[in-house]
Amino acid sequence: MVDTVTGCMIIIGNEILSGRTQDTNLAYLSKELNELGVKMVEARVIPDIEETIIATVNECRQKFDYVFTTGGIGPTHDDITADCIAAAFDTELEMHPEAVAIIKQREALPEVMESRLRMARIPIGGTLIENTLNGPPGFQMENVFVMAGVPLVMQAMVGTFDEERIKGALPVRSRSIGANLGESQVAAKLREIQDEHPDVDLGSYPYYRKDVYGTNLVMRGTDEAELNVMLEKVRQMIIDFGAEPIVD
Amino acid sequence: MVDTVTGCMIIIGNEILSGRTQDTNLAYLSKELNELGVKMVEARVIPDIEETIIATVNECRQKFDYVFTTGGIGPTHDDITADCIAAAFDTELEMHPEAVAIIKQREALPEVMESRLRMARIPIGGTLIENTLNGPPGFQMENVFVMAGVPLVMQAMVGTFDEERIKGALPVRSRSIGANLGESQVAAKLREIQDEHPDVDLGSYPYYRKDVYGTNLVMRGTDEAELNVMLEKVRQMIIDFGAEPIVD
Repeated sequence: MVDTVTGCMIIIGNEILSGRTQDTNLAYLSKELNELGVKMVEARVIPDIEETIIATVNECRQKFDYVFTTGGIGPTHDDITADCIAAAFDTELEMHPEAVAIIKQREALPEVMESRLRMARIPIGGTLIENTLNGPPGFQMENVFVMAGVPLVMQAMVGTFDEERIKGALPVRSRSIGANLGESQVAAKLREIQDEHPDVDLGSYPYYRKDVYGTNLVMRGTDEAELNVMLEKVRQMIIDFGAEPIVD
Repeated sequence: MVDTVTGCMIIIGNEILSGRTQDTNLAYLSKELNELGVKMVEARVIPDIEETIIATVNECRQKFDYVFTTGGIGPTHDDITADCIAAAFDTELEMHPEAVAIIKQREALPEVMESRLRMARIPIGGTLIENTLNGPPGFQMENVFVMAGVPLVMQAMVGTFDEERIKGALPVRSRSIGANLGESQVAAKLREIQDEHPDVDLGSYPYYRKDVYGTNLVMRGTDEAELNVMLEKVRQMIIDFGAEPIVD
């Protein structure tokens, strides 16, 4: 088993870049992938521009073990993700019979159905990602997973991922503990603890709540025993500074 | 005046990538920059890894007019952004006298002050970005703006941006209108309206609320008169489909 299996998310959508819509898919997907042993190591938010999508997909699918895109697979003129994925893989779109059958389950007027059937256009060689909400599916091309941007639909698609489809490593586990201590106060001691455990990632995150400055300390790694040892050191450090450890 | 001034945001932080923390800075910054005439055209979320930060900053500062980073400028061992920016610009960090003075305004024990003064290390040639919350400042190196990740602090820094510092073009304005109509129903007509106004970006965003499927239609462009014409066409389209236009 390899040490780390990497994932990259490509969030496609002008509405996210303009600030009109707040993305929440990254946080959701990162946590779900972690359970499958895939570590999210980069995310990109890009506009609905053909050349940008193609270039980004091609760069990222070389660079990372898995790539996950969200957005741009609906039925309208600004939904160009499938076309771009086909272009990135130097292939064509074709009507996928299974996707056609899924879409035809819901009746519609001919003009409406024509638009809906755009969502059955899958790059040649692609396999479907089921949408358990009974809507149009996403699809996978090699190591690229193409999903909807609407959070509930993306979540339904992510819910179908399993160890057959995604070959991960060990999931990363975390411990966290906070204290009403400034980051600067604990900085030197934290560095010492970090140096003693190079395989665990020790992060410190300042907060400001109810007029009090504090710091959350988060340890992340794959070895539960080592995490527990580090957690105990950090807990003891907080007590030594005269503060109270705060556990979520 | 150039047509479009581009901005790219680099969100630095393992906590965002792991899904532990939900980023909200992108949406905030995008809207504020738009008022200054800068269009956010890409965002990247990257981990606290030196080589990744340096490579990403160097790629993006060539590619975009302005780059904005958040995260990693605190006092602890995992705050490496300033070091990486210096490396990206092939220069060194130095104690910035003004930043030192700001940090020394708040008294602290010697060991704590030593950690806090790490935040006065600014790359040679950098200029400060004031933190109006009286905390340590951010800094600017050429077209790269380096800010804190804590939303309130980032917002305080963004609040100091003005037309002296950021030379933008025309702000993008938007119109939006929704209807309880499926995306597929309006797809053909939308494409027609889009083709009539190539300078306005017409996006359609499906939603699912209270058991009803609907679509929000968002028009974005710099010409207010043309936006109004398009809005009226879209409004009329909704009425023609027998639905009620929904205005936020």
